Amino acid sequence: MNIVIKNALTVLPGKDRPELKETDVYVTGKTIASIGNAPEGFQAEKTIDGKGKLLTPGLINSHTHSYMAFMKNCADDLPFMDWLFKRISPIEDKMTDEDAYWGACLAILEMMKSGTTCFNDMQMNIHQTTRAVKESGMRAVISRGLVGSGNDEAGRMRLDQAYEEMEAFKDVDRLTFMLGPHAPYTCDEAFLKIVGEEAAKKGLGIHMHLSESKTEIENCQKDYGCTPIELANRAGLFERPFIAAHCVQVTDQDMDLMKEKNVSVVTCPASNMKLGNGFAPIPEMLEKGINVCLGTDGAASNNSLNLVHEMSIVALIHKGTHASPLPVSSVETFRFVTENAAKALGLQDAIGSIEEGKKADLVLWDLKRSSVWPGNDPIAAFSYSANGTEAETVIIDGEVTMEKGVVLTMDEEKIFAETRSIMERIG
Amino acid sequence: MNIVIKNALTVLPGKDRPELKETDVYVTGKTIASIGNAPEGFQAEKTIDGKGKLLTPGLINSHTHSYMAFMKNCADDLPFMDWLFKRISPIEDKMTDEDAYWGACLAILEMMKSGTTCFNDMQMNIHQTTRAVKESGMRAVISRGLVGSGNDEAGRMRLDQAYEEMEAFKDVDRLTFMLGPHAPYTCDEAFLKIVGEEAAKKGLGIHMHLSESKTEIENCQKDYGCTPIELANRAGLFERPFIAAHCVQVTDQDMDLMKEKNVSVVTCPASNMKLGNGFAPIPEMLEKGINVCLGTDGAASNNSLNLVHEMSIVALIHKGTHASPLPVSSVETFRFVTENAAKALGLQDAIGSIEEGKKADLVLWDLKRSSVWPGNDPIAAFSYSANGTEAETVIIDGEVTMEKGVVLTMDEEKIFAETRSIMERIG
Repeated sequence: MNIVIKNALTVLPGKDRPELKETDVYVTGKTIASIGNAPEGFQAEKTIDGKGKLLTPGLINSHTHSYMAFMKNCADDLPFMDWLFKRISPIEDKMTDEDAYWGACLAILEMMKSGTTCFNDMQMNIHQTTRAVKESGMRAVISRGLVGSGNDEAGRMRLDQAYEEMEAFKDVDRLTFMLGPHAPYTCDEAFLKIVGEEAAKKGLGIHMHLSESKTEIENCQKDYGCTPIELANRAGLFERPFIAAHCVQVTDQDMDLMKEKNVSVVTCPASNMKLGNGFAPIPEMLEKGINVCLGTDGAASNNSLNLVHEMSIVALIHKGTHASPLPVSSVETFRFVTENAAKALGLQDAIGSIEEGKKADLVLWDLKRSSVWPGNDPIAAFSYSANGTEAETVIIDGEVTMEKGVVLTMDEEKIFAETRSIMERIG
Repeated sequence: MNIVIKNALTVLPGKDRPELKETDVYVTGKTIASIGNAPEGFQAEKTIDGKGKLLTPGLINSHTHSYMAFMKNCADDLPFMDWLFKRISPIEDKMTDEDAYWGACLAILEMMKSGTTCFNDMQMNIHQTTRAVKESGMRAVISRGLVGSGNDEAGRMRLDQAYEEMEAFKDVDRLTFMLGPHAPYTCDEAFLKIVGEEAAKKGLGIHMHLSESKTEIENCQKDYGCTPIELANRAGLFERPFIAAHCVQVTDQDMDLMKEKNVSVVTCPASNMKLGNGFAPIPEMLEKGINVCLGTDGAASNNSLNLVHEMSIVALIHKGTHASPLPVSSVETFRFVTENAAKALGLQDAIGSIEEGKKADLVLWDLKRSSVWPGNDPIAAFSYSANGTEAETVIIDGEVTMEKGVVLTMDEEKIFAETRSIMERIG
């Protein structure tokens, strides 16, 4: 469809900080065709009045497990072992594939409503999140969670499932894939090596939980005599494009290694606090030049997939830990969820900024809200004032998926009914 | 007006945690007349369908400076001295009384939209926040900020202004007053003593910034040889009902003293992080049995007056600092903004819970939102999932001030226009 968004305050790439300019953005098909002047012969099929509103690239949630969305607030303020073994695992054990599908639908609904247009997901039930993504018009990068020991059957089976899924959804170009070895405590070194070789063979990136908890570090040191980050490197995983989720407990050497190997880090601050894992050294990583992105993690360990809320968390907490008003700035935070995330996902040529030739993943935000008014600095507002519901219109891959707060591509009532009934059955 | 809210999931006082019960709440005049059964001869003038929604007591923001609301996002990510002297002070110097009034209007709009029905404010321009409160239907406790040295003219003038204001607004029973000595670094000990004596004479409580920054502690030790909390006690201020805002840098002895003297603490975590002051030891204060409440502080040092956002911050950060998923729980957080706050403000018989005979300060929240769905634990949702815009209908002192998200008592467009033009003039 040919769409023009007229007169929005548009967030364009800038040198030190994004440039804000009132202009027109023209979309043809899936693509941002031009900014400022209409492309030759352009006939608008849809004109969106952006006056007084903010147009940003769609936000990118770089680490989540969307299928868990219906578990929100089902296990809070509990010791970790009770959280996991008394609440989360029993629900997961009873979950059907269909449940996982509806969980992913609820997650996508929440993300879209708060301005997220792409997410990087690790899923356990193949074909379910992918199916929800395909139907909803969302963009996603999917990893089937892999666990395994050496060349065991379980590991091989999950790898095969990952490939089966990639094959089944290869025609949906909003969907790309990575390999998702779960964590150093669920995959042994031999299996990690196999995953690394497979990733190289298939030309895939890798998405993995790394260095989340103190226990993980202690066990890794005991089992392998090295940190989880050193283990991942030793297994050859860093030879591939690599996204490391969490990285809370990292050494200075770990950070140097990640920088050297171009590893992208996804910080998940709400999850890290919720589960008592602490604060990742994000200011130190930024100092070293590591590519940092932001993720909500799954709803069981965060309870919110609202990336705008997560932006406020990451922009504030390091000012607390470092007793300084400077780290992390709102401009850095904005980059975490746009250009840095696009780079981490290997989609830097497609998304992450409003530029001619990129995919039309766009969000129009209503600035006339008491939350962000009087709009003194719209970029700072994301970190310090917005609540996410200012997202008004969402365009993904050139398709209007949400208009004036109403999601057009999903049946909200049906999603609500299905997810409520899942928790009534297995919660 | 006679109002009945029917079939809402109603948050009632409970022993270990609030009790949630689907019931009817009857309001006559300004008061909650009964819960469950209609009072004799009750004729509803307004019936509100609460089915599938949550009815809570109105939230209470225990520390703010509402006049600053238009400064939101005008001074972020700056060193403290630049923030204060290059941005905030120059704007304050140019502010007129009328500006302060519109600032307070914008603040009240933002608070009401996110479910706050009462706030504890320290203001600098008399008659302005009070006027905005009177007109908007909001409830507030107001302190005119006092600074002074001994029995100097400036201090006396401000005390007189405080009394003048109390007299001028004595007929508005939604408004109560405290004395507001600003801080240990703007009031000397002799002046603090005078304030303590005045408070005793007039039967007033005291609202003061205490132990916010390391610099404050160092200077207090240098000037008085004691901590700010010891100084306030020495000056006799703790003999009055006392609300201490911030209390970030406190010793174990400070906490014991506050407990002994029934001092209420207002933690303002976003502000404390934003300005690089760190994390208040809230779990330790709770352990000692101190009455803890929650405040947003003013918009210049937080950028958000959304108390639901602040609830998520306070519930999460101490899990980070204490590397444990346990402190602060969602039930504790909910108490910070309801019963604890009511007690701190001396309004425990009037507000803070849904009970027969209390004032009808009520908020009806829409649970059918992707942010909080499927509603597994609505109390936990405030801390971990809600964004504040779930507030749908607000009743204050028996008056419907917001209905289906529309504020009925204020002219939103006018507030937006005025506050934007203020920043264009002096920002």
